[in-house]
Formats: sequence, C-alpha cells, structure tokens
Amino acid sequence: MAKDMTLLWGSGSPPCWRVMIALEEKQLQGYNQKLLSFEKGEHKSKEVLEINPRGQLPAFKHGDNILNESYAACIYLESQFKSQGLPLISECPAEQALMYQRMFEALTLIDKLSNVIYYNYRVPEGERHDSAIKRNKENLLTEIKLWEGYMQKMPAGSYLAGKAFSLADVIVFPVIAYAFRFGLSKQRYPKLGAYYGLAKDRPSVKATWPPHWLENPQGGDTLKDL
Amino acid sequence: MAKDMTLLWGSGSPPCWRVMIALEEKQLQGYNQKLLSFEKGEHKSKEVLEINPRGQLPAFKHGDNILNESYAACIYLESQFKSQGLPLISECPAEQALMYQRMFEALTLIDKLSNVIYYNYRVPEGERHDSAIKRNKENLLTEIKLWEGYMQKMPAGSYLAGKAFSLADVIVFPVIAYAFRFGLSKQRYPKLGAYYGLAKDRPSVKATWPPHWLENPQGGDTLKDL
Repeated sequence: MAKDMTLLWGSGSPPCWRVMIALEEKQLQGYNQKLLSFEKGEHKSKEVLEINPRGQLPAFKHGDNILNESYAACIYLESQFKSQGLPLISECPAEQALMYQRMFEALTLIDKLSNVIYYNYRVPEGERHDSAIKRNKENLLTEIKLWEGYMQKMPAGSYLAGKAFSLADVIVFPVIAYAFRFGLSKQRYPKLGAYYGLAKDRPSVKATWPPHWLENPQGGDTLKDL
Repeated sequence: MAKDMTLLWGSGSPPCWRVMIALEEKQLQGYNQKLLSFEKGEHKSKEVLEINPRGQLPAFKHGDNILNESYAACIYLESQFKSQGLPLISECPAEQALMYQRMFEALTLIDKLSNVIYYNYRVPEGERHDSAIKRNKENLLTEIKLWEGYMQKMPAGSYLAGKAFSLADVIVFPVIAYAFRFGLSKQRYPKLGAYYGLAKDRPSVKATWPPHWLENPQGGDTLKDL
C-alpha cells in the first residue's frame, strides 16, 4: 500500500501512464489518485498547481517529495523501492547502458511524434506551413525506422533493452502505444508491432491502460501512411 | 585513468559538456577524446556515425557500451563508478527527489532556450513568423523566472538540489552557462547569477570549459532584454 503517495493524472498521457506502470511494477498499489480531464482544463486547476507549478500532469507526491517529471518519478521510485516488486534496472553494465540509452533517445521519438500528431495544436493557424508538415513527417519516418531497426537487432521476444522488462519499457512503451493508436502500421513495422504485442499484455500495463482508450480503441489515422 | 572510454565531442555543446563534467567528477580522466567541429560538419563523419547513428555529439563509448545521450551517459557513469570520485546522487530521499525533478525539468528549459537562440537555424526562412518569435521569448521568460524562483527558495550558496554538487548540476549547469553566454542578465536574475558564479569555479567545470568560449567569452546578446 502506498498511502503516502498522491497522483493526479490524465487518461492517455504517456507521462502519466509511465508513473502508473512504475507504481504497479514496484507493487505500490493503493496510492491516492484522481483522474482529471485535459478537455475541461483540470490540469490548470488549483489542486494541480499546488503540486506542479507548470500546470501539467502528472502531478505526483511521495510524502513531501514532489516528482512531476515522469522520468524523474520513475527513476526515483526504482531507487527508493529497489528491493520491492520488479527490479527495473539491470545489474549488468551492458544492459544498463542500453536501457539508459534507449530511455533518453525516446525524448527524440516523443518530440518527432508530437510534431506530427499535435501540429495543429502546437502551431497557431496563421503560422502553419505544408512544408513544415511534410518535413515533420519525414523526420518521424526516419526516427520510427531507427527504432524498428533497433528491435530487429534484438533477439525475438525481447523488451527494449533485453529479456527483462525495464525502466526503458516503463518510459517508452506508452509512446510506442501512442504511435499505434494513431495508426502506425504493424505490417510495415513488424518488430515494433511485436514489441507492442508483448508489452501490452503485462499486468502492470493492462492494469493502467488509459480508460478512454478502452472506450475508443482507435485514436486517429494520422500515422497510417508512414 | 579511463583508457577504455572514448568521447567524440564539440566545443560549447551542453550535452558534450555534461559528459565531460561527469567524467571529471568521477575521476575518469585520461579517456580517449577528440574535439570535432560542428561548423565543418564533422558530427556527420563516419567515425561519429559508427558510434552514434544520429550523427550527433557526444558520441561516447565505455568498452562496447554506447551512451550517446548525455543524460544516459551521466547516470550510467555514476552507477558504474559509484564509489569513485564525488558521489553525484544523494542518499537522502528528499534531496534525491529534488535532484531528479530539476534534472528533468531542465528538458523544458533547454527546449524553450533553443526555440529562442536557434530560431533561425531551426525554422527555414519562408516559415518564420514574428508572432512565433514573440511567443518563444515569452515562454522562455516564464521558464527563466521559474528557475530564478527555485533558486530563491534555496539557502544561499546552494547548488541546484542542495548543498552538494549533484547530477542535477552536471546536467543543468551547462544550460545555465549557455543562457548567460547569450546575454541573460545577472542583475535581473541574481539567484541564477549567483549559482552560475558558484558552479563555474568548480575544478570539474573549469577543466572542461568550452575552448572556444575561452577565446570568445560572449556568444551573443539574444537574451539581453529578457
């Protein structure tokens, strides 16, 4: 039980989902939690701003310790609850190196994915350009191919950094799931598709699957031609 | 001595600088290293691409372990050389939480800083808008004020996450230094200025100061009115 923890979260947000997967893997169920609505602007509410001055979700507290950045929260949870639940960081230097490398390369994947999926949200109407949309798609294509190539080099049935589910998966799986939800082709990216199929069935992932994704499994087809 | 390590780096790149500070703090001097020129496009050379398929610097290897992402490299080095040199992660949960939180909030600072300093580099000529330039500056102003506020709440003489120099400083100091190099006012942001003054004199920071910054201490005045 994790009664000294509070998580304010939004459905489908990869940063929120990461923290929830980490909490499940570390057997920290029973934390205080509240689902807020991005659509209603609840991430800008007073209760969020008291924990997270940026008005973003997740807003996460462990006692008096505030960890709103999802990477920070996941690394902290592993550090504080090392011997509880699944060890999320391998003791093997080579696996550890690959895990950290993939975790942080994902920042580029997230950036390139967001530039495509959220273009209209991020760029005001008068500043939009077809040339930028085209370039963003090309950049995302290059990035996705890189990740498909990474998974090609791993033995079948691998997680992102090896045989074991690790912090790399906690961090990156929600991003991969997001890409497939927005129409990425499992035929064109079979290794990423296989990884998605493997990781989505983990109990920690199933227990935290975004509730509105269960209601509407398809998010859009923005990425279907990629 | 760290003869089994190789670092390809560029002068003035915060990601490269981080790895160099971490190597100094962990007493891993003597690594193989090569200064490459961004201007000459040497980051896209074969020797870089063999380590870093993105063609970016740093390109870093420890034995066969590749860690090109600067956050990944710094965390890995601390993990592998825990008892050597300065411990970069506090054992205290509260200090650890603050350290990780600041380390990852810095991603937003970097993004907002780059959007201002590198606008012309990032956005092709036909896609530039005064409205975007104005918004980017406003976003950076909000962000810098947030960090000035964070430092206001720390006791005088503190590093980013407490009395001790930590992984947060390894990661974030080069970004703060970058902002001052581009004209950020130490009068308007005295707490950040004091932090800059404190951290710049650390031996690890002095030993790795970007060589071309020594020749040309001022990078530009893009931020002077912020």
